[in-house]
Amino acid sequence: MNGSKFAIGVDFGTESGRAVLVETKTGKEIATSVYSYQNGVIDRRLPVEGDPIALDPEWALQDPEDYIRTFQKTIPEVLMQADIAPEDVIGIGIDFTACTMLPVKNDGTPLCAMAEYRRYPHSWVKLWKHHAAQPEADKINDTARRMGQAWLDRYGGKISSEWFFAKTLQILDEAPEIYHAADRLIEAADWVVWQLTGVEKRNSCTAGYKAMWSKREGYPHEDFFKALDARLENVIDEKLSRTIYPIGEKAGELTAQAAEWTRLSEGTAVAIANVDAHVSVPAATVAEPGRMVMIMGTSICHMVLGEQERRVEGMCGVVEDGIIPGLFGYEAGQSGVGDIFAWFLSNCIPREYSIEAEKRGMSVHQLLESKAALQKPGQHGLLALDWWNGNRSVLVDASLSGLLIGATLGTKPEDIYRALIEATAYGTRVIVEAFEKNGVKVDELVACGGLPEQNKMLMQIYADVTGRNFKISSSKQTPALGSAMFGAVAAGSGAGGYDTIFDAVKQMAGLKKEMYQPIAENQKIYERLFKEYLRLHDYFGRGENNVMKTLKQIRDEVT
Amino acid sequence: MNGSKFAIGVDFGTESGRAVLVETKTGKEIATSVYSYQNGVIDRRLPVEGDPIALDPEWALQDPEDYIRTFQKTIPEVLMQADIAPEDVIGIGIDFTACTMLPVKNDGTPLCAMAEYRRYPHSWVKLWKHHAAQPEADKINDTARRMGQAWLDRYGGKISSEWFFAKTLQILDEAPEIYHAADRLIEAADWVVWQLTGVEKRNSCTAGYKAMWSKREGYPHEDFFKALDARLENVIDEKLSRTIYPIGEKAGELTAQAAEWTRLSEGTAVAIANVDAHVSVPAATVAEPGRMVMIMGTSICHMVLGEQERRVEGMCGVVEDGIIPGLFGYEAGQSGVGDIFAWFLSNCIPREYSIEAEKRGMSVHQLLESKAALQKPGQHGLLALDWWNGNRSVLVDASLSGLLIGATLGTKPEDIYRALIEATAYGTRVIVEAFEKNGVKVDELVACGGLPEQNKMLMQIYADVTGRNFKISSSKQTPALGSAMFGAVAAGSGAGGYDTIFDAVKQMAGLKKEMYQPIAENQKIYERLFKEYLRLHDYFGRGENNVMKTLKQIRDEVT
Repeated sequence: MNGSKFAIGVDFGTESGRAVLVETKTGKEIATSVYSYQNGVIDRRLPVEGDPIALDPEWALQDPEDYIRTFQKTIPEVLMQADIAPEDVIGIGIDFTACTMLPVKNDGTPLCAMAEYRRYPHSWVKLWKHHAAQPEADKINDTARRMGQAWLDRYGGKISSEWFFAKTLQILDEAPEIYHAADRLIEAADWVVWQLTGVEKRNSCTAGYKAMWSKREGYPHEDFFKALDARLENVIDEKLSRTIYPIGEKAGELTAQAAEWTRLSEGTAVAIANVDAHVSVPAATVAEPGRMVMIMGTSICHMVLGEQERRVEGMCGVVEDGIIPGLFGYEAGQSGVGDIFAWFLSNCIPREYSIEAEKRGMSVHQLLESKAALQKPGQHGLLALDWWNGNRSVLVDASLSGLLIGATLGTKPEDIYRALIEATAYGTRVIVEAFEKNGVKVDELVACGGLPEQNKMLMQIYADVTGRNFKISSSKQTPALGSAMFGAVAAGSGAGGYDTIFDAVKQMAGLKKEMYQPIAENQKIYERLFKEYLRLHDYFGRGENNVMKTLKQIRDEVT
Repeated sequence: MNGSKFAIGVDFGTESGRAVLVETKTGKEIATSVYSYQNGVIDRRLPVEGDPIALDPEWALQDPEDYIRTFQKTIPEVLMQADIAPEDVIGIGIDFTACTMLPVKNDGTPLCAMAEYRRYPHSWVKLWKHHAAQPEADKINDTARRMGQAWLDRYGGKISSEWFFAKTLQILDEAPEIYHAADRLIEAADWVVWQLTGVEKRNSCTAGYKAMWSKREGYPHEDFFKALDARLENVIDEKLSRTIYPIGEKAGELTAQAAEWTRLSEGTAVAIANVDAHVSVPAATVAEPGRMVMIMGTSICHMVLGEQERRVEGMCGVVEDGIIPGLFGYEAGQSGVGDIFAWFLSNCIPREYSIEAEKRGMSVHQLLESKAALQKPGQHGLLALDWWNGNRSVLVDASLSGLLIGATLGTKPEDIYRALIEATAYGTRVIVEAFEKNGVKVDELVACGGLPEQNKMLMQIYADVTGRNFKISSSKQTPALGSAMFGAVAAGSGAGGYDTIFDAVKQMAGLKKEMYQPIAENQKIYERLFKEYLRLHDYFGRGENNVMKTLKQIRDEVT
């Protein structure tokens, strides 16, 4: 590795942070280190001395000290593992869950780190999956609809309780003293870059996807914020910033203190912050329109690039410079995929199957796949709507629920398992068709995330159902790799990195050789089944029969 | 028991025959004996010497010798158990599965007992669940519809492949030599009575429910049979009989040979034959309109009496004198109930539940009930259509299938279990409402069969969903008890029996003290849920969305 240069990507997840050291010339992942956050997801009580402070259900917080500790633990560790000199690391990039945000003082100090605010839940980091701001999200949606705010269309007509201003408004509603004590409200992604570089520079990805900002129109107008709450009128100028930096730029350089934390050289280039899903797109080789990247795990995040801004039903967002500079990044999502399969494995697999799996030395998942993979499409006679966790795209309706139809006394667990997988594939096809109908091309699919590796049958089904080639990213840690790529771009070609993300993609990103191609015979049958899926999708999802909502309403009334 | 008189009921089931000795004065069941048929259900190969003769799928036969052996084994056994003199047994009644039919010679000899026919599958008894005559049933339905045969309305517009003329036509189609060799085609119910008494007397119950006979119109006209197949034109006069005896009459008296088989006295009264489900009605205390008897097991058979003949959508049949002499007996059915729960227990219960049940010393069913019974109606947020085995009443459509809606990532096995039970209760309510809409009163429900005993939660749900009191027959062997009651009626009051079944009901039948009454609070919620059930029932069951049929069609095409 003489003469090699390296970049480090740091991926801040829900339970842990991960640093990956990558050779810039090849994209080879040389060393990895993971730090499990000391305080993890804080969802029961605050990690404070004295009387315990309990959190309401739906709350999910984090401790910003865990992010600093991630730098302190993982970066020295990958340097040591790789046995390289700090000066051979030319750049750092980071990616984060989003929207994960916190209130801080002008010097970057989190309120939760200050004795006077430490016992206020609202002074802590609100994690992406903090779901307690639904009333505020409802108010934002109602107000925006009433005022005919055009930006709402960029988010499929509805913003989520997970997003920036819902969380902001919850702080103001429930703890105005914290809101007022906060000089800045900031994405954790930008906050950690601030901690590394000493400068507050906000990224276009979280601003665009989570805070209603757009390159051409900026944030929503003051009138909108005023209508939401008079005290919010000037929130952008008071506590955010109108200067947003596109993905792919350099944020700054490591401060002396950050160099000490990380054992890297002071002055090392640091990239503008990014989001875990979005940074995976270039890591999966995609930097141009036409190929959709799917981050497949408990849910699926679908991302595709376009040259123009189009309205697409039910997408999560479209952001210029949001994924790749100079292009519009479209995001859509399926709110339940891997977690539906996990639910099925936990709740519906008979003892005999568990025993058989043990005897055959395989997991129950592998056993089910081995049985289900023997079937032809349509053979089990089942059809499902994959709405166990609601529907994000294209219906944007969390109150929908799962459906299984076609069961007989001969139905076996592997039949239902296969039907659930197929249902998620139909869900992806609905999204693909929504994009294409609105002029956003999807010629091919590229998968990354945990699911593709262990699910050959699933991959083939997705290829058959969508009628598209389905490829897999060669990296198993695409977010960290993508962050390292942006770190290499922040450093520039002169330092042994790259001048653009497009150059970095060519050298550092790759796909596995194996590819799943649609099988014509299967496609024909799935075509007919998809038609039936679509009919049920529209019947139960578009208001003709609201039984799913009625059932949840009755459930909520009686409990 | 000095001075006591007794009647014996013999109940011919699918796998075994059962004799119960009953005290006529009290209905007390003194002794029981069960004989497992030596040749059981014959569905793979004929029990003959020499080269094996395999049966096609869907075939199900029995050996008439097993019926004789039932008399020989069980009746002497109950006499011995009870330690009573043969002359204190005043009458015998029998009930049988139906339509279970066989071809015999003029002297009653079954063709399958004759060397020359023994190797013909069509010479054996066709058991009720012989399902290989579907093409013949289709032909009968098509022909009847084309010819506008009014009798079709008495059977919900469709006759089953299990019934008498479908089986008859299959013999003629596939083995005309057997058809021609048969002097008589006869229900096994009537054949065993013939064996006991030496006289061929056919009963109104099987003739009415399974062979399209009615008291006022007799059998369908020769023109109909001729249209079906020219060779069938005179089937009634050639191989059946136009003289049909109402339930409740005496068929004859034990012959010397039958007395030897049974160790009873020659000349003991024998009742006209009956069907297991129908004979349970008086055994469950019902001999008047207004109370519906439900035989609850793998499926449910619903029976109610009326004073007039009405058309009711999707019923299995309405027969004058079919259950109680002088009244119209209405029969409806749900094709899947206990077998749906059994399917669920076999296929969908996770290992943890099996282990928990073992630890707590209960069955998995009991564990699920203990968990599900804690819930309020509507709490699980689920709704199901109970069509795992198709739908008999009121839709008469075997190609329908099961549906579950409302699943979330929080759905537990006990939630689905409770939803399945509720779905079968909604199914019963649809039947109750069809009866009432057409002027057949259903004020109260009476259960018998295997399910009610072990399912308190189920019983309460049925009461809540139907809004009716739900009682349980005190006998666990209602068919045999009912047959014994008819045996006592055949003997008459002079011999220590009764002159009418109405008198027998008063003395010999009873209900358990426990009763399930609708709970107003639950009813209110089930009212709302039933409305949603009904909407799905009609949407998927009445042709608006034929996805269930399409799924089965695709399944059949690919396999």
